[in-house]
Amino acid sequence: MTSIDLNADLGEGFGRWRLTDDERLLSVVTSANVACGFHAGDAATMRQVCELAAERGVRIGAQVSYRDLAGFGRRAMEVPPAELAAEVAYQIGALEVFARAAGARVSYVKPHGALYNRVVRDEEQAAAVVDGVLLADATLTVLGMPGSRLLELAGKAGLPTVTEAFADRAYTDEGTLVPRGLDGAVVTDPEAVVERSVGLARSRTVLSHSGALVGVEARSLCLHGDTPGAVELARRVRAELVAAGVRVEAFA
Amino acid sequence: MTSIDLNADLGEGFGRWRLTDDERLLSVVTSANVACGFHAGDAATMRQVCELAAERGVRIGAQVSYRDLAGFGRRAMEVPPAELAAEVAYQIGALEVFARAAGARVSYVKPHGALYNRVVRDEEQAAAVVDGVLLADATLTVLGMPGSRLLELAGKAGLPTVTEAFADRAYTDEGTLVPRGLDGAVVTDPEAVVERSVGLARSRTVLSHSGALVGVEARSLCLHGDTPGAVELARRVRAELVAAGVRVEAFA
Amino acid sequence: MTSIDLNADLGEGFGRWRLTDDERLLSVVTSANVACGFHAGDAATMRQVCELAAERGVRIGAQVSYRDLAGFGRRAMEVPPAELAAEVAYQIGALEVFARAAGARVSYVKPHGALYNRVVRDEEQAAAVVDGVLLADATLTVLGMPGSRLLELAGKAGLPTVTEAFADRAYTDEGTLVPRGLDGAVVTDPEAVVERSVGLARSRTVLSHSGALVGVEARSLCLHGDTPGAVELARRVRAELVAAGVRVEAFA
Amino acid sequence: MTSIDLNADLGEGFGRWRLTDDERLLSVVTSANVACGFHAGDAATMRQVCELAAERGVRIGAQVSYRDLAGFGRRAMEVPPAELAAEVAYQIGALEVFARAAGARVSYVKPHGALYNRVVRDEEQAAAVVDGVLLADATLTVLGMPGSRLLELAGKAGLPTVTEAFADRAYTDEGTLVPRGLDGAVVTDPEAVVERSVGLARSRTVLSHSGALVGVEARSLCLHGDTPGAVELARRVRAELVAAGVRVEAFA
Repeated sequence: MTSIDLNADLGEGFGRWRLTDDERLLSVVTSANVACGFHAGDAATMRQVCELAAERGVRIGAQVSYRDLAGFGRRAMEVPPAELAAEVAYQIGALEVFARAAGARVSYVKPHGALYNRVVRDEEQAAAVVDGVLLADATLTVLGMPGSRLLELAGKAGLPTVTEAFADRAYTDEGTLVPRGLDGAVVTDPEAVVERSVGLARSRTVLSHSGALVGVEARSLCLHGDTPGAVELARRVRAELVAAGVRVEAFA
Repeated sequence: MTSIDLNADLGEGFGRWRLTDDERLLSVVTSANVACGFHAGDAATMRQVCELAAERGVRIGAQVSYRDLAGFGRRAMEVPPAELAAEVAYQIGALEVFARAAGARVSYVKPHGALYNRVVRDEEQAAAVVDGVLLADATLTVLGMPGSRLLELAGKAGLPTVTEAFADRAYTDEGTLVPRGLDGAVVTDPEAVVERSVGLARSRTVLSHSGALVGVEARSLCLHGDTPGAVELARRVRAELVAAGVRVEAFA
Repeated sequence: MTSIDLNADLGEGFGRWRLTDDERLLSVVTSANVACGFHAGDAATMRQVCELAAERGVRIGAQVSYRDLAGFGRRAMEVPPAELAAEVAYQIGALEVFARAAGARVSYVKPHGALYNRVVRDEEQAAAVVDGVLLADATLTVLGMPGSRLLELAGKAGLPTVTEAFADRAYTDEGTLVPRGLDGAVVTDPEAVVERSVGLARSRTVLSHSGALVGVEARSLCLHGDTPGAVELARRVRAELVAAGVRVEAFA
Repeated sequence: MTSIDLNADLGEGFGRWRLTDDERLLSVVTSANVACGFHAGDAATMRQVCELAAERGVRIGAQVSYRDLAGFGRRAMEVPPAELAAEVAYQIGALEVFARAAGARVSYVKPHGALYNRVVRDEEQAAAVVDGVLLADATLTVLGMPGSRLLELAGKAGLPTVTEAFADRAYTDEGTLVPRGLDGAVVTDPEAVVERSVGLARSRTVLSHSGALVGVEARSLCLHGDTPGAVELARRVRAELVAAGVRVEAFA
């Protein structure tokens, strides 16, 4: 029997502002990427999300970001490696306090937004993120794109790694993402998203942009939680996975 | 033989800006109040201060503050207790990562600036700081003013507490500080600061503003590191304490 | 024929986050209190709100705040007067650029959140806000609570002042607001809000918490835009005011 | 008789932190690049620098930056053009308030740090900066590198432009700067800096890294104010320029 993890970004409000429906998403996902205060996520929200996640047995991960509240971490930044490593560790440490207070712990790290995209190819920043994880806790898993520099360097450093796929993003024939901004990069039809989720989970394959069946190594599916209808779609994905005989569970 | 701890605020720069001569102060003090990013203290500086402190066997404490970079944490704020508790825990957790990476740990918490002053009397905020410390780590010591609500509530909550005195501040006949802004509130003569330090350490007494000898309960002396000549004065205080037969060592 | 101004807080998002439905509110109100970046309001949003307001002939005001994104400006702060005055002027200047670029200008200033409440009674901060307004532009109108220190000091300084009332807040027999947190402080029944709006506009009176008819000096009504159903309620208020023969127009 | 403008970055503290000796530098330079709050520069400091500059007849310019206090604006950022333009305008508007209050006005704009370097070649960001300047005030001068995209696009948009040179930076044979990080990129010998200043001012030439005499178009010299001995060096440069018959005066 095949198993898959479902991860989503949570706690992405800040002070008065809310973005994600944390409570309802936590009844769907198995891994919660919790914002740590650099692109979103105030301390009180971090605490609350950790408590809810712990109650429901959802795995807690640190969603680390560039320091950029105004840009929601979506603007690439040329941060010197030593600064970036320290900032990654800082965020993990802050979240760890709330995870432990809730009787759980931070078990993985996933970069957010522009940092996520950057460490797919950027050797220096990928190494800095790995350094930051090692500074904080050398037993943490790193969650990211298959084939990314981040996962490669994390693996070399002895950190466990987990790959993820996106059911709502188009893939090329090489199994990489069609860049946002290109036509058809985002899959908006809910039926298609559900179907692709099942295919990715059961056979680690997806129909590419050109119609070819391509393999996508993925032990986790990333669900989006910040769009209208996101929670309903996430629930359907989970239900259809279960109906298709896939075990939905956090990665080991 | 009498013993005394010497504490000072460290790591109070931010990015390009520097305030404290961390390296030299760390060869004088026995306890380092490290800024955690809310009033000062970027992640790279926090890491560096923890490394230097660990090398020299200086105890590491979290200097927690209101979130106020623009005001350096010197502006009192009406923060709701749940937010304040979470923000205190967040700062402690972030610092803990760097302390552990340096082979040490955070062993105490001291509020900074306006928060320090506020929790002398404010029941609600004092309780929130204690809640934040308990959230982060129930074995942490709380460092503060003798007679403060903070130490009283920390003690009731089962946290170890340590009192401190200020050799460069005038005291009333009741053993409380003469408020800043009043005439003579700050002792600027280095000779007087040295002499008062020795008196506070040896006999837990100091000459009050009116000339009376008053008792000041203090297991630690707070040295200031952000003024011209601060490091030289701190060195003299330490040397004179040793010469007077006082053992300079971190509190237990 | 009686006339009334309708004002609401606008542009209260920040980066990725949105709070107010600016476009729809701008078709209801006659005065827009635009957030200037200290509690909310990024530069691109400020620009957009000014453009929309100018198109529709809505008056543009600077909604100035303490520097507190994390607390949305709702936490009172002890800001030294010289700093507060400069921060008020800074915000007005930043907004003025976008108002002018849109072919309009900033014509009034209204403090936000905790600063609004503070300057009702606090002489020092009220004077600092007035100083900030004078620094920026001595022809600006100040919008605030009738009887507040702010309006009193603004008037003494030669600045035009405009009073406002809140149709969704309970009033005491003395014509002051029942403090939030007390039972019944907020009027949640839409019918009541509409009725009170008409009463305030037509006769400058409102039924107090105890049922007495009290006078409330007000040339403007403040509508809230950040709650569910806010826009619909605002539209009804405006429609009923017009139906009752009140001229809805910006203050002179 | 040849004339030259001397510009320097001023007001680069933030809250408790100071970096530049504004008062003394203002007795040397003819143009003050005032930090506007995004990389440095709180409102009270901006006000004070404008007052001092106005008293001494020093021209006031807006030193606009990426929003990056933690990185002092030295980290390149991928800011979408519409955001960047609005942020540039915001900063100019905020400074204009203090310039006017001091009886002067903002007369030019100079990008800071990473943004300065970026707009030498980056078409999109250079255009966004020009858009921001036009939004704020279409009569402002743009100060920057000769040959930069920024000056080219500013000129096309009808904005006056002024070129600058750096007496403490090495130049290539093509008249461009030797990149920081390369050997010898920064000229640290004060005698050499003085001599190069005079050469740049009198003949718009400088000895390149390889020893060739190259032309550098420059109506202004940029002096650095944030290093030890900076003010003394700036004074010597000015004195030697005057002694060499150069008229030191703000650009027209």
